[in-house]
Formats: sequence, structure tokens, C-alpha cells
Amino acid sequence: MSRSRFEVIAEDKYSRARCGKLALTHGVVQTPVFMPVGTNGTVKSIEQGKLKEIGVQIILTNTYHLYLRPGMEVIKHFGGIHNFMNWHFPILTDSGGFQVFSLGRLNKVTDEGVEFKSHIDGSRHFLTPDKAMEVQMMLGSDIAMAFDECIDANSDYITTANAANRTYKWAKRCKKTHNLDDQMLFGIVQGGIYEDLRIKSAEEITALDFDGYAIGGLSVGETKEVTYSMLDIVVPLLPKDKPVYLMGVGTPDMIMEAVKRGVDMFDCVLPTRLARHAMAMTSEGNLRLRNAEFQFDKASLDPNCDCYVCKNYSRAYIHHLFKCNEVLGMMLLTIHNIYFLLDLMKNIREKIKSGVGLMSNVR
Amino acid sequence: MSRSRFEVIAEDKYSRARCGKLALTHGVVQTPVFMPVGTNGTVKSIEQGKLKEIGVQIILTNTYHLYLRPGMEVIKHFGGIHNFMNWHFPILTDSGGFQVFSLGRLNKVTDEGVEFKSHIDGSRHFLTPDKAMEVQMMLGSDIAMAFDECIDANSDYITTANAANRTYKWAKRCKKTHNLDDQMLFGIVQGGIYEDLRIKSAEEITALDFDGYAIGGLSVGETKEVTYSMLDIVVPLLPKDKPVYLMGVGTPDMIMEAVKRGVDMFDCVLPTRLARHAMAMTSEGNLRLRNAEFQFDKASLDPNCDCYVCKNYSRAYIHHLFKCNEVLGMMLLTIHNIYFLLDLMKNIREKIKSGVGLMSNVR
Repeated sequence: MSRSRFEVIAEDKYSRARCGKLALTHGVVQTPVFMPVGTNGTVKSIEQGKLKEIGVQIILTNTYHLYLRPGMEVIKHFGGIHNFMNWHFPILTDSGGFQVFSLGRLNKVTDEGVEFKSHIDGSRHFLTPDKAMEVQMMLGSDIAMAFDECIDANSDYITTANAANRTYKWAKRCKKTHNLDDQMLFGIVQGGIYEDLRIKSAEEITALDFDGYAIGGLSVGETKEVTYSMLDIVVPLLPKDKPVYLMGVGTPDMIMEAVKRGVDMFDCVLPTRLARHAMAMTSEGNLRLRNAEFQFDKASLDPNCDCYVCKNYSRAYIHHLFKCNEVLGMMLLTIHNIYFLLDLMKNIREKIKSGVGLMSNVR
Repeated sequence: MSRSRFEVIAEDKYSRARCGKLALTHGVVQTPVFMPVGTNGTVKSIEQGKLKEIGVQIILTNTYHLYLRPGMEVIKHFGGIHNFMNWHFPILTDSGGFQVFSLGRLNKVTDEGVEFKSHIDGSRHFLTPDKAMEVQMMLGSDIAMAFDECIDANSDYITTANAANRTYKWAKRCKKTHNLDDQMLFGIVQGGIYEDLRIKSAEEITALDFDGYAIGGLSVGETKEVTYSMLDIVVPLLPKDKPVYLMGVGTPDMIMEAVKRGVDMFDCVLPTRLARHAMAMTSEGNLRLRNAEFQFDKASLDPNCDCYVCKNYSRAYIHHLFKCNEVLGMMLLTIHNIYFLLDLMKNIREKIKSGVGLMSNVR
């Protein structure tokens, strides 16, 4: 029996969009799904009980951050990340690759792995595909990600090709090392903005038979049109019976376009980061709550939203909280923004399942 | 009919402690009671729904802060502070006196009132007893406080006597100006650490027949023994059928001693401020959660506590949150610390009502 327990339960009649059920160790996830990001084992400014209450199905936590702090001795002591953070529902861990390349101070990248210095205390570490597997197995996430080489968005063809080749080598090592039956392992397709490299990477990675496939290295500076065209090329090359995950995308328009192109899973820091910057995501665009225009505004954040915050608090009150630098402002916008994206995903699922389809505007 | 709707329902057999019911416009409060402080119309780092969930009966908000921000035009637009902050339970507003003297930059204090500059933007304001009443009536709190002159804790006899005299003059003006039937008005006894001044102030203020009586100017630097001896002098001079409120006290030991001396109400920023500084209040004293000793500690904050946080999170996880400067750390400690004091008050009330009495250790 394959560890991949993904079932497509409905397909859109107008696009490649589909609804699925992904049976994970800590619960069944309805796709398409948005995963809030809990970098340090906490989704910033929201408590785990509230996450569950507003309908979060699965969160992402960052291997790089947890490896450095609290460190694997603590995680082992608690028997995994679920117990440590008291979130007993699905968790996906990234491989640490993206953070090693973006946050750590790089020393050396070889086929063996990456030597880097911690962004916290400058301590030296060596992360290899095997180590990335060991760490994620110890974290005990429901879904682990293969270790990949992440490069600058503006990299040239040769650099991109080399990184995709190394990602393939590392993927083979990950596949070999990973041995946890109750943890899925996803491979990552790279190849930047080069069609032929994307095709080659998709073919190589799928040949390794992972439990699911992520598309990495997109939405990192290229235009939306390029992102969409890469999806148009890559997704059809992935097995239809495996979940497809587009990493790091969280704007409503891009989620919609990616779902239409067959993507099942998304993660992004956007809703929580915007909340910390006093920005509310709404059906009419983002609101900048610090603006003076909201001083007397009795309306809820979004007239089309029925979240806890919109049912209980006014724009004027939230404006006031941010003017006073009160933490509750971030707390309320975090609840609302995550709910906003969850609601978008729910509407998408309903449109697909009911047969209304995705050509019509979702909300 | 008096607006004072306070009923003593049980008296301790060993001390002056009593249990009461205080019927306010937005609900009935069981005394002795602890009131968390919501300076800017938010109890820092906790959401209103959570306050209610953990059993908060009444909160305090600060007139000075709300008067400056969001300002009375906004409060008027919302029809009061309850609607503005979405807290539809009792609220006590202080008079603004304490903050004018401690936060504002003072320009001039006369019998008329206080001229000061805002600590936020330096704007000039003139706060008088009449203005303090107008502002609190507009805030629409359940309990308003008379405007008093607050002086340095180390003031000499003459300075203290003059401030107490002025507080009396101002109390008379407050009593005359206040005209809201659904808002109680409490007088404040001053007199520093001087017995005769405390006695004089208590006699003068009670002669004005307020709905309740606060004891101000204590726990501001003097020893606990001095605080207790002032309570021993003042409380017996206050009418037994009116609630007694000791301002600014929030440590468990002082609450206990004050309750034994007949105090019914308390407020303090302590539980929320400690939470922001990674300190947990527990039955075994305060825990400094940043300490390395908690890195692997699976225990809850307090083995004797059954709050949401103690049921769900470990010391190690909260330690980790503070090491990472994650807001959730403050959020969790805020819930726990407020619950801890509420639980203390509940135990006190039960001891009094059951006849066990307060000589035995509470909890």
C-alpha cells in the first residue's frame, strides 16, 4: 500500500481544478487547502485553539527554525512537534532548504549539502539531504519535504540548471533515507523560469515516486504570467493521483489561478504578516487599518465576512488598537486574514463540488 | 432609591472580610473582585471573548488614555466605551487623576483643576472635576471615580494635607456635576501615610454620600505594613453597606490582607504586565519563563491551576515562545495570570461563604 492516501473527489468542468481528500496521520485534509505558516512552532499572534476554531486544517512549520530553536533535543524530549506545540492536527514541515539559503549565512554548498551559520547566534551547521530527513522524521510532521537547492530568482540558465540537477540528486538521497510510514514525503520540482528545465525537473522528480509534488522557486519575483505559464507546463506532467503543492503563494488571485491549473495546496506568511502590519485582507482588497479614514468607521473589516472579528469589532476600534500599538490589533487581524483565505478555499471547494465551476467569480 | 445597589451576602467570622453582590448596569459583580486593567480600551494581549471565558466580571479602563485616544468624539459616535470596545459587561473608569499626575507633563495645578500636556503628542489639556465627570459620563462606564489629586508617595505632611483638602473640594464638585442614574460614582479617600489625614479624609468623603469608596494613594512605595495599618484605620470609617475599593493592588498576599480588612474591589496592571515580561504568577510564586531551566520542562505553569493554558501548554513551549519573541507567549501568560487572580478571588469568596473563613490559607 502506498503511503499516498490522496483521493480526488470532484473535478471542475471548466479547468484542471479538483477537490480532494488527503488522509494524513493527524486528520483528513480537504483540498484545495491553504496552510497558515507557524515558523517557530506558532502561527504568529494566534493561539492553537483559535486556529482550530476558525477551521484551519493543516499548518506549516519551518524545519530550519525549529532545528535551531528549540533544537532537536527538546523536540525529541516531547516526542515531536505536535506535542511540543499542542497542535494535534496535520502539520507539513518544509525541508529547511529555503531558509538555509535565505536566512543563514552560507559558507559552502556542495553535492554533499550546505554549510551555514545560524542567523540567530552565528553557530555553524551542516545540512544535508539525510540530515533534513532525520530532522523532519524527528519533528514527526504529517508531510515532510525533500531537501532542495533554492537559488536567486534572477539566476541565469546555467545556475538554474545546476541547482535543479543538485535538487534531483538530493531528492534521491531523501527518498532513500526517509523511512517513516506515517509521514508522507513530497518531492520538489525546480527549474526556475526555464520551460525545458521545469520539464526535465518534473520528469526526474516524478520518476522517484513521491507521495506528493511541490512546485518550488515560483512567486519569488517573476511576473504572475510567468508563474502561471510554469504551472501550465509542470502540473500536467505530475501524476493526477498525487497532491500538488505550490509553495509560498497566498494572494487570492494567484491561489485562484493556481487552483484552476490543478494545484491542491498552498502556504504563505501573507495573512499573518499583513496582520502585523495593520492590513486586512477583504473581498474588496486590502485595508490599511492605520489610515485616519477608519477613525469613526463602525463597519466590520469586510461586509462579506462572517468571521468572529467581523461579527464583533469595528474598523474604528481596530484602527484605535494599532494607533496605540496594542497587540490585540494584530491578534484580531490575524484571525480575520486567515479566516478570509480559509473561506476563499471553502468557496472554491464548494464551487468545484457543486458543479458551478471556477469560471464564475469566486465570491 | 440610592443608586448604590450593593448587598453584603456573607461575612467572615475571623476578619472584616465579606462577600457581596454589586448590581451594575451591565451585570452583577460578585465581590471580593479583581478587575483587570484595559488602559486603552483593551486588556493588553487578551481578547474580550477570552476575558469573559475565563470569568472576568468587570474591567477597568483609563479615562486619561481614552480621552486622549481615540478621543471623546469617537466615543460619543459609538455611544460609549462598551460599544466601542465590544465589552458588554461592567466597566469601571478611573478619574484620570492618577495618569495626569504620573504620565502627563504638568503645567499648573490649582483648585480649578490641572493643566497638562499629553504624553502622546504634547497637546495641552485642562482637566477639572467637572470635566472628569463629563468624560466619564460620556464613556458610560458602570462606575465612575471622583477626580482626586495624586501626589508623590514621599510627600511631607503639609503637601499631603493640602492634596487631601483639594481632593475633598474636587469630590464635592464631582458629586454635584455627576448626574447619570445608571452610573455609580465612587469617592476616593486620600491622606497618604498620615493617620489623622486619612481619618479626616475618610470622614469628609463619606459625608458626601458616594455609591462606594476607594482608598487611593496606597501601595505606591510605602511598606506593606503601612498599607495595612492605613486600611485598619480607614475601612472601619466607611459605611458598611457600600463597596470598598483599594486602588492599584494586585499581589496575592496584599489582596488577601486587604480582603481581611474589609476591601471588596481591586485593580492592578500586575498580571498583564508580568505576562509581557515572561513572568507567570503561580501558587508557588512567580516563574521567570525566560530562564533556561524551563527548556525541557513538560509541566504546566502551575500544578494547582486548571486554566486553559495550564491544561494545554508546557513551560518548555512558553519558554521557547519567549526566546523567539513570539506574541503567543504573552498571550498565554496573560490568560494564565488573570485566571490565577480570578481563581484566588473565587477561593476567597468560597471560603467566606462556606464559613471556612480566611484564617486558613486560601488554596
